[in-house]
Amino acid sequence: MLKFKEYFTKSSSSKIVLPENSINKEALETLFKAICEERDSKISGFHNLPYEKKAILDSKKYIRENIHLTQNIDNLIIIGIGGSSLGLKAIDTMLSHLPYRKNINLKFLEHTDPIKIEKSLKKVRLNNSLFIVISKSGTTIETLSLMKYVLKRYDLLKNDKNKQHLCFITDINSPLHKFGNLKHIATLTINKNIGGRYSVLSTIGILPLMILGYDVENLLLGARKFSTRFFQRKEEHLLRKAIFLSNNREKFHINILFSYSSVFKDFNAWYVQLWGESLGKLNSFGKKTGLTPIALIGSIDQHSFLQLIVQGVMDKTITFLSLEQKSYINPKIPNIRLKFLDSCNFVNGESFALLLQQQQISTMEVIQKEGIPTDHIEIKKLNEKSIGALIMYYEILTSCVGKILDINAYDQPGVELGKKILITKFKKSK
Amino acid sequence: MLKFKEYFTKSSSSKIVLPENSINKEALETLFKAICEERDSKISGFHNLPYEKKAILDSKKYIRENIHLTQNIDNLIIIGIGGSSLGLKAIDTMLSHLPYRKNINLKFLEHTDPIKIEKSLKKVRLNNSLFIVISKSGTTIETLSLMKYVLKRYDLLKNDKNKQHLCFITDINSPLHKFGNLKHIATLTINKNIGGRYSVLSTIGILPLMILGYDVENLLLGARKFSTRFFQRKEEHLLRKAIFLSNNREKFHINILFSYSSVFKDFNAWYVQLWGESLGKLNSFGKKTGLTPIALIGSIDQHSFLQLIVQGVMDKTITFLSLEQKSYINPKIPNIRLKFLDSCNFVNGESFALLLQQQQISTMEVIQKEGIPTDHIEIKKLNEKSIGALIMYYEILTSCVGKILDINAYDQPGVELGKKILITKFKKSK
Repeated sequence: MLKFKEYFTKSSSSKIVLPENSINKEALETLFKAICEERDSKISGFHNLPYEKKAILDSKKYIRENIHLTQNIDNLIIIGIGGSSLGLKAIDTMLSHLPYRKNINLKFLEHTDPIKIEKSLKKVRLNNSLFIVISKSGTTIETLSLMKYVLKRYDLLKNDKNKQHLCFITDINSPLHKFGNLKHIATLTINKNIGGRYSVLSTIGILPLMILGYDVENLLLGARKFSTRFFQRKEEHLLRKAIFLSNNREKFHINILFSYSSVFKDFNAWYVQLWGESLGKLNSFGKKTGLTPIALIGSIDQHSFLQLIVQGVMDKTITFLSLEQKSYINPKIPNIRLKFLDSCNFVNGESFALLLQQQQISTMEVIQKEGIPTDHIEIKKLNEKSIGALIMYYEILTSCVGKILDINAYDQPGVELGKKILITKFKKSK
Repeated sequence: MLKFKEYFTKSSSSKIVLPENSINKEALETLFKAICEERDSKISGFHNLPYEKKAILDSKKYIRENIHLTQNIDNLIIIGIGGSSLGLKAIDTMLSHLPYRKNINLKFLEHTDPIKIEKSLKKVRLNNSLFIVISKSGTTIETLSLMKYVLKRYDLLKNDKNKQHLCFITDINSPLHKFGNLKHIATLTINKNIGGRYSVLSTIGILPLMILGYDVENLLLGARKFSTRFFQRKEEHLLRKAIFLSNNREKFHINILFSYSSVFKDFNAWYVQLWGESLGKLNSFGKKTGLTPIALIGSIDQHSFLQLIVQGVMDKTITFLSLEQKSYINPKIPNIRLKFLDSCNFVNGESFALLLQQQQISTMEVIQKEGIPTDHIEIKKLNEKSIGALIMYYEILTSCVGKILDINAYDQPGVELGKKILITKFKKSK
């Protein structure tokens, strides 16, 4: 499903000396042992999600009980922010070309932005829409404010008929769970040890994806297969990459994901959250640590960011993500010769997919020539299985780097103070 | 129009020592003199664009000559990449709420991505569409390949009637200019010394914006006013910021633009290109230099990237960009009290704009408490004038930093090799 290649220590340019690659067998063993212990400790439940039945069973039950509604909606509106929206959005954008993806508008109410709110709800009417409110804590300020707005706008609590258009996904026993029970609103739960940015394979992702018509069993199967292979020591490149990135973080403190297709736009955003929020932490000794994620789209960002990678300060590693071009033979670049414009004839008659693939390879070569560490993930075919594997790969990679950096990759204490200040500001002004 | 505040050297937390701020009067004078010399040298024509009439006159002439078409199209399709699309897209996204913005779909063909091409053109028919091909050099591989695709798909060269739906914007005497003249296709030109990423106030931005109904005179007026004030030494903060960012680049090598409204989404991308591609360069002595841009959207990215800013390695400066909330009093958060969910009642009855503004201020305070340098740009009202000023501010700032870094902020030599490798690859395979 996925092909992995690393170019961390080889440089095609002999004049450049790469940083020492201190990956020895002992380091691999230490890391593998640590990640096994972490999985068994259940500090985070993400390892277990591909093996669980809860998300599938709960979602199937909900859909069965609301079959008439879920089969007839035109709009699925997710009210949720951060980990409650990024993963779902990423998967839908990568897979929306699949023929069985239903013709439902997936919309996200995540901006508390006056201009955006009106735009998002402009064409949304109650009778053809389902609102899913997603908040792990059940107390996210943006989510609850936006929920109140739609409660009022669509009079969602008016009667049982209206309530049918509302559904909650939240932590077991959260305030939102209790409110849902009190008001008889369909409420699905997730376990507390599933962090928001690791939650896309829980009900948070599974229920909406199932409503949209995706094959979620295959999504979990792809994730399960990758996880199983990793713990059978069949994906050693992942351990090597985690060690390389961590050991060289003083020099290469920025990690770029350079994705060669516009369908990865939202996956890029998911990666940025996962990497940034998981790894930007104080370590056990109180030192600020972390690796900075940046995500780009090729070939577009060859015309924007590439110059900085090639000639700017050498502080970045680049992971290329691309699709195997063989799966996409159409459309083709017409074989037209235009006077004065013959310098572009060399791609005449080729597929756009081949152009994109060759652009990715050429860009990678240029970057490698500068001695910049790169690696490459190639997806054979864009479907639920390969995306499940890709998600699992990144979640395990992040947790491995977290282990080496000696941090907790599953909390986000740095954002709490802002919430307190915000409350004070409003209380003062009243 | 714009309010600027800096918090580079003050820290609200006494325990943190900020980097020395070596901004003295002499440094300001040296930089100002250098930037005046650069403007007069005309190495880049961007300084002059707000004072020129060419873009407005050429665009008016084109629209007059094609009045029936430009007044009746449903789709305006821009075939262009990088500097040929980012600026226009940024302005349209920031201003699309203006009531006189015409109901025309603005689409961009910039991805050579098989999945994206089909999606973009799905509902596009010839008779209600105008295709504008934008390429400075006239030889951009993505742009010309996509142009050939639409030439064939819509048979655009068939006769004069079809040709009317096609228009070029390119450098004077470029291959595309010559081809346009040969085939009698409307071709507008820009001067060679206008780089792509500095071109939004040239015909490249002005013609499409005029077709969309925007008041482009006010856009240029806003830019002109800011430029005039700067050269009258009435915007000294810009010089101080350029010196601060440059002098402290070893420690703070990442510059974040944290924009608090979804309307800045595409402006963020424009900033990333401008900053990254202009400043990532070899200096006069061959040393790799540069500053890395990252762009975020608030409050969304408080749930994604903020943790890394607060507790990750202290290597980032943060520029906040926001709208004055007074201009947006609606919609409001309903005054609803829900059992178990009272922890969010503190914003009941307030506007979403106030919530967003207070989130921006709270986040800025948290970051400042960590001793991280911040500054804040507040836009009073989102209109052509303020956006013209914002664009000019960023272009002048970038050129000032380029001066101090001792680099050419207007070329992009690092991306040339990739183009050569690409051609070789295709020629080999044939």
